[in-house]
Amino acid sequence: MSATERWGIHEVVLSGPREGNPFLEVTLAAVFRHGHREVRVEGFYDGEGTYRIRFLPDEEGAWEYVTESGAPALAGKTGSFLCTPALRGNHGPVGVARTFHFVHADGTPHVPIGTTCYAWNHQGDALEERTLATLRASPFNKMRMCVFPKHYLYNENEPPLHAFEKGADGSWDFTRFVPAFFRRLERRVGDLRDMGIQADLILFHPYDRWGYADMGAEADDRYLRYLVARLSAYRNVWWSFANEYDLMKGKSTADWDRLFRLVASRDPYSHPRSIHNCRGFYDHAKPWVTHASVQHEDLVRVTEWRAAYGKPVVVDECCYEGNIHRAWGNITAREMTRRIWEGTVRGGYVGHGETFVDPGDVLWWSKGGTLHGQSPERIAFLKSVLEAMPGPHEYTDRFTARYPALQCGDGDAFLIYLGDRQPVRMELALPSGRPYRAEILDTWQMTVRAVEGPVRAVTPGAGTKAPPDSVPGAAVMDLPGKPYMAIRLTAV
Amino acid sequence: MSATERWGIHEVVLSGPREGNPFLEVTLAAVFRHGHREVRVEGFYDGEGTYRIRFLPDEEGAWEYVTESGAPALAGKTGSFLCTPALRGNHGPVGVARTFHFVHADGTPHVPIGTTCYAWNHQGDALEERTLATLRASPFNKMRMCVFPKHYLYNENEPPLHAFEKGADGSWDFTRFVPAFFRRLERRVGDLRDMGIQADLILFHPYDRWGYADMGAEADDRYLRYLVARLSAYRNVWWSFANEYDLMKGKSTADWDRLFRLVASRDPYSHPRSIHNCRGFYDHAKPWVTHASVQHEDLVRVTEWRAAYGKPVVVDECCYEGNIHRAWGNITAREMTRRIWEGTVRGGYVGHGETFVDPGDVLWWSKGGTLHGQSPERIAFLKSVLEAMPGPHEYTDRFTARYPALQCGDGDAFLIYLGDRQPVRMELALPSGRPYRAEILDTWQMTVRAVEGPVRAVTPGAGTKAPPDSVPGAAVMDLPGKPYMAIRLTAV
Repeated sequence: MSATERWGIHEVVLSGPREGNPFLEVTLAAVFRHGHREVRVEGFYDGEGTYRIRFLPDEEGAWEYVTESGAPALAGKTGSFLCTPALRGNHGPVGVARTFHFVHADGTPHVPIGTTCYAWNHQGDALEERTLATLRASPFNKMRMCVFPKHYLYNENEPPLHAFEKGADGSWDFTRFVPAFFRRLERRVGDLRDMGIQADLILFHPYDRWGYADMGAEADDRYLRYLVARLSAYRNVWWSFANEYDLMKGKSTADWDRLFRLVASRDPYSHPRSIHNCRGFYDHAKPWVTHASVQHEDLVRVTEWRAAYGKPVVVDECCYEGNIHRAWGNITAREMTRRIWEGTVRGGYVGHGETFVDPGDVLWWSKGGTLHGQSPERIAFLKSVLEAMPGPHEYTDRFTARYPALQCGDGDAFLIYLGDRQPVRMELALPSGRPYRAEILDTWQMTVRAVEGPVRAVTPGAGTKAPPDSVPGAAVMDLPGKPYMAIRLTAV
Repeated sequence: MSATERWGIHEVVLSGPREGNPFLEVTLAAVFRHGHREVRVEGFYDGEGTYRIRFLPDEEGAWEYVTESGAPALAGKTGSFLCTPALRGNHGPVGVARTFHFVHADGTPHVPIGTTCYAWNHQGDALEERTLATLRASPFNKMRMCVFPKHYLYNENEPPLHAFEKGADGSWDFTRFVPAFFRRLERRVGDLRDMGIQADLILFHPYDRWGYADMGAEADDRYLRYLVARLSAYRNVWWSFANEYDLMKGKSTADWDRLFRLVASRDPYSHPRSIHNCRGFYDHAKPWVTHASVQHEDLVRVTEWRAAYGKPVVVDECCYEGNIHRAWGNITAREMTRRIWEGTVRGGYVGHGETFVDPGDVLWWSKGGTLHGQSPERIAFLKSVLEAMPGPHEYTDRFTARYPALQCGDGDAFLIYLGDRQPVRMELALPSGRPYRAEILDTWQMTVRAVEGPVRAVTPGAGTKAPPDSVPGAAVMDLPGKPYMAIRLTAV
């Protein structure tokens, strides 16, 4: 019996009809069984008479399957495999946990540290390999990337492959997929998976000169069914229905609703689903949305969006570190780092991106390549700070909403972020009677300095009436009077 | 015949009853006549049997007056004076011009460059003189200051004088003013006037341990009538009905409306009138409000408030440069400078303030004294830039709302501000066919660098379809790729 690790891909390969248009005319699925449990998954035509069914087993032990097809050559095939324990580094797919957060299927928390290279997978092998090498040395564990190629500023090159064949008249035949295009995509999604990086796949986007943005409802649906059949067995897949959906004038809200429902009903593994805005948000409260995917500059509002949707808030785009002429792509490393800290300490997840002018138009935000900015190492520092804090982490406004903080447990630790403010001291309304060990973190210099002696709340004295805006009983801590500081407090 | 310069104070001094309570029992006014024109102004009791009527003449030539009073000793007094040309530096009181802007009565534009020292005038002569010396060397031409003393963080000292006498039971007698208190205030308002500084007088505020914040409607009205009688002849007076009016729980919106109407109907010179919020704004659209007085951190919204109210927008408080523990008082000099530029280039007027911890609790924001921050010299630079630009200035969003700009005339010059963005080049949608001389201003380093050769829009070529988000035909300018830059363009 063949073996597949838990949350690996078990693939069944079959030979079948190649005449006519198999993409349209041949149905294929398999039912996988583990004890009395059944999981039905759809297969797909991979060209040259080859059909595949991919399955992501989530329980160890023996699985068996039987195929279903309208084509006799593909129907009633059976087989079995042994699902073995997951190998090191394989924590399974990601889902939502504790309302606002993510967790892998094996219980390991997933803290998205995202970046964006929209079209890195359409650049040819040399550049794509360079991007992968950069990612390997980076803090990032989530990548936003487009299934379709991109036409935009600094993005005028042709992709190596297209997703559809062309008909006799030179126009796209949206009923005939190009399997090599999708194999290329899968290879890159697999590369990311093997590095522990989630592939936040953007299914549609408006920046297009070829016609992918306006294929019509029937072709859209067929494309998504095909993509789900091919890719949902990759444990690191997330479905991002669009980038800047509100700029795609050819699709209505009803269209997006339909596409969400289509994927939700066909993806056997319920990968995370969301949709990214330019200006106005899609209603992330809708039941098929698993988390909010947000473009916005004001990270203070993470608090408001968490309350509005009761779901994780991922701010995929808050402007990019860089120096291009467009305002969405020229914030400083200091500001990028500040935004990421602000949103993180508010219990959201904020993505990085980078747009430095390049003589060959290779900007990280779109084509990948090499990172030039100063924020990634600061993001790595933040990641290390979070990892060193006892969990679970949750946002608290106990130090006033202006100084957002993560609280661990019921006060075992706090991480307070002061942003670009430069106070020389802080009043901290700590839980009474509990001494804390304090450290001052310089989030820009990436240093941690221990404060001598414990910090604790005091009992307010019975003196004259305190002036307005004072915090009676607060612990008082001296600070260096510089921007970009954080305070970490750990109960002694 | 005595002489008073135009927009100076002509004061009539009379002796009258001192028995009983003259503040309550004696009425006094005068009608000033110039040709067939009449201006009625109220007088006030200044203690020790002395009564005064103050008049701010706005036309040169002969004026005569006759008094009115219920007290025979004060009634029917007549006199005259010659109004002579205004002396150098006296441009008359400030009013609204061109919807969103201010102008002096002599037609000189007034560009408010404000600061705040709430209680500087309650600190005793030594510190007050130091404050005046600091102001003399500063760029500021508007000062926000409270009539009443202040009780707050860093403000626990007693004022030299109080506004009311105490009754036999030790509580305030709100029917008996202390003239020396008001003379002290007038002296300081006069000091500012002589330096060309507008006194934005805050009539009520919530930070109070003495009872000024809750005197009751009758006492509030009597106090304002008295204040208007004493102070409206100072050409540099502005009426700010409250600081953080929404924290004054003892007054309703109807109360504020009544107080506005009272002053509007009794101030013969229509000095600027507004009211300052903590969180929610008073409705600045109401007819008795001459300009919006705003506390807010987001200067981008100046654009929105101008549209909402159709009046000048003065952002009196956008946080203070400093290092105290409260978030409203610990922004950096860079951020203070950025906010002031941002709001200014959007056609608003943004005020400065400073809160650096001081061993003697002398923080500029409240007590005045000495400036320690780095923003005032940058504000002076901005002031010099504005003064060097041909006028009139008005906000334009022609370079996109993200890069706000002031436009002079119909395009004779532009001042574009790039904020904390760091582009290495800009696309500028300039009026076609008009070459501009360009300069790059570093608003932090306070330098101006001329760009070689003229900058001009080009005619878009008939080539392939431009990618989304490009600006066909725009002039392109190289920039240093650093934050805090501005571009000044002057038509050749």
